[in-house]
Amino acid sequence: MNADYQNYLQSLRVPASSKKISLTKDFLTDCKDKPFTKKEGKELLKAGVEHLADMQDMLYAHDRYSILIVLQAMDAAGKDGAVRHVISGLNPNGVTVSNFKTPTYVELDHDYLWRHYIALPPRDEIGIFNRSHYENVLVTRVHPEFVLNERLPHITEVKDITPSFWEERYRQINNFERTLAENGTLIIKFFLHVSKEEQRLRFMKRIKNPDKNWKLSASDVEERQYWNEYMKAYEEMLGKTSKTYAPWYVVPADDKWFTRTCIADIIGLEFQKLKLHYPKVSQQKKEVLEQIYQELANEGTGQAKKTK
Amino acid sequence: MNADYQNYLQSLRVPASSKKISLTKDFLTDCKDKPFTKKEGKELLKAGVEHLADMQDMLYAHDRYSILIVLQAMDAAGKDGAVRHVISGLNPNGVTVSNFKTPTYVELDHDYLWRHYIALPPRDEIGIFNRSHYENVLVTRVHPEFVLNERLPHITEVKDITPSFWEERYRQINNFERTLAENGTLIIKFFLHVSKEEQRLRFMKRIKNPDKNWKLSASDVEERQYWNEYMKAYEEMLGKTSKTYAPWYVVPADDKWFTRTCIADIIGLEFQKLKLHYPKVSQQKKEVLEQIYQELANEGTGQAKKTK
Repeated sequence: MNADYQNYLQSLRVPASSKKISLTKDFLTDCKDKPFTKKEGKELLKAGVEHLADMQDMLYAHDRYSILIVLQAMDAAGKDGAVRHVISGLNPNGVTVSNFKTPTYVELDHDYLWRHYIALPPRDEIGIFNRSHYENVLVTRVHPEFVLNERLPHITEVKDITPSFWEERYRQINNFERTLAENGTLIIKFFLHVSKEEQRLRFMKRIKNPDKNWKLSASDVEERQYWNEYMKAYEEMLGKTSKTYAPWYVVPADDKWFTRTCIADIIGLEFQKLKLHYPKVSQQKKEVLEQIYQELANEGTGQAKKTK
Repeated sequence: MNADYQNYLQSLRVPASSKKISLTKDFLTDCKDKPFTKKEGKELLKAGVEHLADMQDMLYAHDRYSILIVLQAMDAAGKDGAVRHVISGLNPNGVTVSNFKTPTYVELDHDYLWRHYIALPPRDEIGIFNRSHYENVLVTRVHPEFVLNERLPHITEVKDITPSFWEERYRQINNFERTLAENGTLIIKFFLHVSKEEQRLRFMKRIKNPDKNWKLSASDVEERQYWNEYMKAYEEMLGKTSKTYAPWYVVPADDKWFTRTCIADIIGLEFQKLKLHYPKVSQQKKEVLEQIYQELANEGTGQAKKTK
């Protein structure tokens, strides 16, 4: 990875300043001067995924960390494709994708973080949250009446939901992630930043391609009318919850191939910070292994030592 | 409940000051001037448990809160007896007791709060943690080598466990409970404060009573040598984690009957703070109910309206 590209990826990271960011000025849905062509990008993605597979192997051997990858985006921004193309190169024994949809009755009977806590990856494993606990400050921000389903004691009407309610949620989410990070979970969060125009084109494609019809519902299209409200909710959320222990990356999502390459390489860079290594083998153990090797070799030649 | 007794119960509450308390000066294992006799106490306990059962019914109807009761103590202080005598009067449909023992391998593969998060009571229900997440700043404080089982990235030897490690844990636990409280969980925490001498007598009783032998292991007795270390760990923990949103009560535990009465009445007082009420029925619904009542009554006399 060359330095320019690496700097570019770093520039996608939302600073941990708690300041509101702009999704029109600070971060683009398209990278105009891409550091490589589409063909090169596909090669890079292949190499990036192989690198991740190596890191995953080392994650297991190192036996200290777990990885939590959070994906958030507007519909049709490419979350599912990112999961398929970036994560599918990994060993499925050690990866879990959790898709969070409308909360069930059982889930609504607990605090909103509960279903996410349960789904956290154990040590040595990688968990993907395809949509996540962040929906509690996104879809509910745009449709605050959804909060009433939680039956919170102090929220009985929409007008009870004041700005301090959202501040409380940001704090709760930050504390949740901080505890995880302090206990050995590497957290990497992605917002796939797609333009409204690109979403329109992708929705039209889904309608024209019968195999993609199932992916589009009328309600997805209805949500387009709240586009600006969603962007506002994302801007505030990204500013308030990007932390050194759990950074957000805003990845341009108007070109799918570019999005995927960036995601794979950002995960690779974050992985490297863990300084994973295979456990060191002591001289004594090396000698024991060497002796066993000789015994195994001799067995093959019929010179095995008799064992009682 | 008379005012003196109520004031006494309030005095058992650890102030939310983050100051270390003294378990010899500030809180006693025995209440010398008990506000009632043993016989009266048993009557009071019966009434207290009946009151809790009423509150539980209202908790369900109110449909906003859950209750988390945490019990911590040295061995033989009376936790199991408190559960049996205080909680057994409640409707078991809506109460869960979680006994947390040595963490399993599956549990050790997650952060230390994970197994407790999973066991949290849903809305309208009461959860008892018989031992709890606090063991992570108690038994591990006295035996820090147990922390190594968690395989935390930055803790590879006991000497890595600095005072700031414990401060971090207190913060994590406080944040965990604050999030729960803010989302509708009433948290009440009890330390059953027994003297070392009373523990000795109870252990001896367990040895002389064959039916109680199973409750005592040699390792329980071995832990007595760490008594002072445990008291120090409790004193710091109680000071750091008693909060308005999740208070600790230090209940004298040298007299079992007194402990149980105090616990039932403290829970009752905390319950009252929720201002639970049955849902208000509108005039319109009352009229509908009255009409249905008449129809049901007529059905019994053979005058039911025919329905197609």
